Amino acid sequence: MERITVQVNKPYDIVIGKNLIDNAVKYLSQFIQKRKVLIITEDNVNKHGYLDKLKYSLENHCENIEFLSLPPGEAQKNLKNVELIIRYLADAHFTRDDVLIALGGGVIGDLVGFTASIYLRGIAYIQVPTTFLAAIDSSVGGKTAVDITQGKNLVGAFHHPVCVLCDTSTFQSLPTDIFEDGCSELIKYAMIMNPKLLKELIEREQPLNKESSDLPEIIYECVKMKRDIVLKDEFDQGLRQLLNFGHTLGHALEQRSQYRISHGRGVAMGMAVFTKMAVTQQLIHKDIYTSLIQLLSEYHLLSEKPSYTSDQLINIMLNDKKRRTHQMTTVLPNEFGQCRLHVIDLNTFQQNFEKEWEQYEVHQRY
Amino acid sequence: MERITVQVNKPYDIVIGKNLIDNAVKYLSQFIQKRKVLIITEDNVNKHGYLDKLKYSLENHCENIEFLSLPPGEAQKNLKNVELIIRYLADAHFTRDDVLIALGGGVIGDLVGFTASIYLRGIAYIQVPTTFLAAIDSSVGGKTAVDITQGKNLVGAFHHPVCVLCDTSTFQSLPTDIFEDGCSELIKYAMIMNPKLLKELIEREQPLNKESSDLPEIIYECVKMKRDIVLKDEFDQGLRQLLNFGHTLGHALEQRSQYRISHGRGVAMGMAVFTKMAVTQQLIHKDIYTSLIQLLSEYHLLSEKPSYTSDQLINIMLNDKKRRTHQMTTVLPNEFGQCRLHVIDLNTFQQNFEKEWEQYEVHQRY
Ligand SMILES: NC(=O)c1ccc[n+]([C@@H]2O[C@H](COP(=O)([O-])OP(=O)(O)OC[C@H]3O[C@@H](n4cnc5c(N)ncnc54)[C@H](O)[C@@H]3O)[C@@H](O)[C@H]2O)c1
Ligand SMILES: NC(=O)c1ccc[n+]([C@@H]2O[C@H](COP(=O)([O-])OP(=O)(O)OC[C@H]3O[C@@H](n4cnc5c(N)ncnc54)[C@H](O)[C@@H]3O)[C@@H](O)[C@H]2O)c1
Ligand SMILES: [Zn+2]
Ligand SMILES: [Zn+2]
Repeated sequence: MERITVQVNKPYDIVIGKNLIDNAVKYLSQFIQKRKVLIITEDNVNKHGYLDKLKYSLENHCENIEFLSLPPGEAQKNLKNVELIIRYLADAHFTRDDVLIALGGGVIGDLVGFTASIYLRGIAYIQVPTTFLAAIDSSVGGKTAVDITQGKNLVGAFHHPVCVLCDTSTFQSLPTDIFEDGCSELIKYAMIMNPKLLKELIEREQPLNKESSDLPEIIYECVKMKRDIVLKDEFDQGLRQLLNFGHTLGHALEQRSQYRISHGRGVAMGMAVFTKMAVTQQLIHKDIYTSLIQLLSEYHLLSEKPSYTSDQLINIMLNDKKRRTHQMTTVLPNEFGQCRLHVIDLNTFQQNFEKEWEQYEVHQRY
Repeated sequence: MERITVQVNKPYDIVIGKNLIDNAVKYLSQFIQKRKVLIITEDNVNKHGYLDKLKYSLENHCENIEFLSLPPGEAQKNLKNVELIIRYLADAHFTRDDVLIALGGGVIGDLVGFTASIYLRGIAYIQVPTTFLAAIDSSVGGKTAVDITQGKNLVGAFHHPVCVLCDTSTFQSLPTDIFEDGCSELIKYAMIMNPKLLKELIEREQPLNKESSDLPEIIYECVKMKRDIVLKDEFDQGLRQLLNFGHTLGHALEQRSQYRISHGRGVAMGMAVFTKMAVTQQLIHKDIYTSLIQLLSEYHLLSEKPSYTSDQLINIMLNDKKRRTHQMTTVLPNEFGQCRLHVIDLNTFQQNFEKEWEQYEVHQRY
């Protein structure tokens, strides 16, 4: 079992290990005693029995415990569900002393975190991530959000949980492609600031998988990195942009494909193209690019190059930045296991990207 | 013109004076230059021409300026309007650099402040209060909220404006009873921590009215008090409860009367009953009560005693506190122009209140 403390205004712990849910009360009792608890989850998670286990462990230790299970999927991360949960809380007379538990992946985590942040101007919530991505990324950092038809994550808040309980046993029921999507973020962490982890991933005999016994240690490494970045830039005004490595293009690909390209696959292609860009600009040696491509391939993250033109993608990437500024910040590899923020002229970026995107297919064969 | 700075995380100024809107650009240019601006107001305010003046002063100094005018009234402070404004912002591609302006009373201020706090996890907003209550109370302190059917202010956030521009000329169109409601909060400030102001109010030749030339100074005094309390207790965990003087009973009266008793009148009766309670408990001399009653009468704030039983009111006041605790915090006068927080047993409170409420009619004749 690993434990890591996040020293924000109200410090909280992230506990990582196997079968933690069965003993949830051991880690959560201080947050639920004499309190009302509402667990919010979704049907894909629920059907594997995690909700039952969690309830069973907690039910004799809180004032009362209720649950709500939503349908699965990104489409549920919306304002309607925020309102639904809020009305539920108000009807059940939840006060500022009571607590929500988010049991699920990033969708449930973001939805519940945001709702907790606005009910009575903020009540406590606990994250119990059940996807690898939620474990290493969305459950850390305090960003919460929901989507509106105009775009993803356009409405949200900064609101830290009071505890994160990360039970890696829940990953066993994860579809493989969902687990791999999480690995894209893992590779991102290694690329932006962890040469040791990057080396380990490259040299591993077997790619990490949802049964790997060292999952808790790996999650611990990632969470520690994200924590350190977040602590230096809690409200997303600089350094935190490092975490966007691969994401500018990744988001554009997700959006353009109407989310047929998954987040993990989009980010993977983003990292590939931007790493190649760094090679072209002689920021790094070609070998780093070769290793990255190999790594991404092992995790089946490199999908076919889609037929979008570079113009189409640039339009999405620049959004309407051009209206107001001449520059943007890109994240580029700088060394093995290290990225840097580069402020770059919009026109230059456009030219560089065009060239890279056209050649991309060829280079993928490395 | 008065100016006061609130030293929160991102410090901001409150500017108070006459005809400020006509020169709004002078005070707001740094917040609007090269930015998109959305002014949100309501029809009662709009029809007096304040929106036109504000737009006229700002329009050549920002990237572009748009407005939205809602119907007036508390019922507009709801989640539907939050969503409406958010969709408007998203459609118009507002970014984190852009800004909202709340032009109106507490309803518009609370609604716009909350919306600004969650769009893109928080964008800037400016308060331009147009009621006396908004000037001295709701526009200061960073509390924002909207109502749901289950209750008032159940959904919200802490989000400070980047500037408050308080133009006392806008009060001239205020209905007298609305202005008087604001005076109830003024008297509250004087009672809780300002003997000098309380003395001035008592000795004034003419009651303060919406044309009084010393409005800016009075507002300055109140804002300074609220600022000082808020700075010591930004997230409402202690001292800020002083501001609730008269409000426990006030809220119960509002709720029980289905808001036929206004907030100001409810609070006035609340202050009267709780001050009488302090006399009974020999915390203060009877003269303080007499002066308060006189003052409240001058501002037409003492309505008829409604026929609710003390049990009915206690049930609302205690809500379901009894389920979980034996104590509550009350705010009681302690001296002329000074209140204190008293932690008191629920049963004792119930007995004290019962007695006071039964006798209340008699004492009103002071
Ligand atoms: N807040 C942040 O900082 C942050 C960071 C990254 C991503 N996100 C958000 O996270 C979301 C993506 O997270 P995600 O990938 O976890 O999505 P998700 O919650 O939709 O989970 C992915 C899929 O796995 C299923 N699932 C979840 N747990 C399972 C389990 N234990 N067994 C079987 N199936 C399970 C879900 O039903 C879903 O189909 C996005 O909405 C994204 O915006 C937020
Ligand atoms: N955020 C806080 O800290 C805080 C503190 C106190 C009250 N509040 C909230 O403030 C609200 C009450 O504020 P309010 O009394 O300003 O209510 P309001 O905004 O509804 O204004 C009161 C009335 O005056 C009208 N009006 C406003 N400005 C006018 C003008 N210049 N000329 C003519 N008519 C005008 C309005 O249309 C309305 O009918 C409540 O929702 C309350 O919850 C918030
Ligand atoms: Zn990501
Ligand atoms: Zn009030």
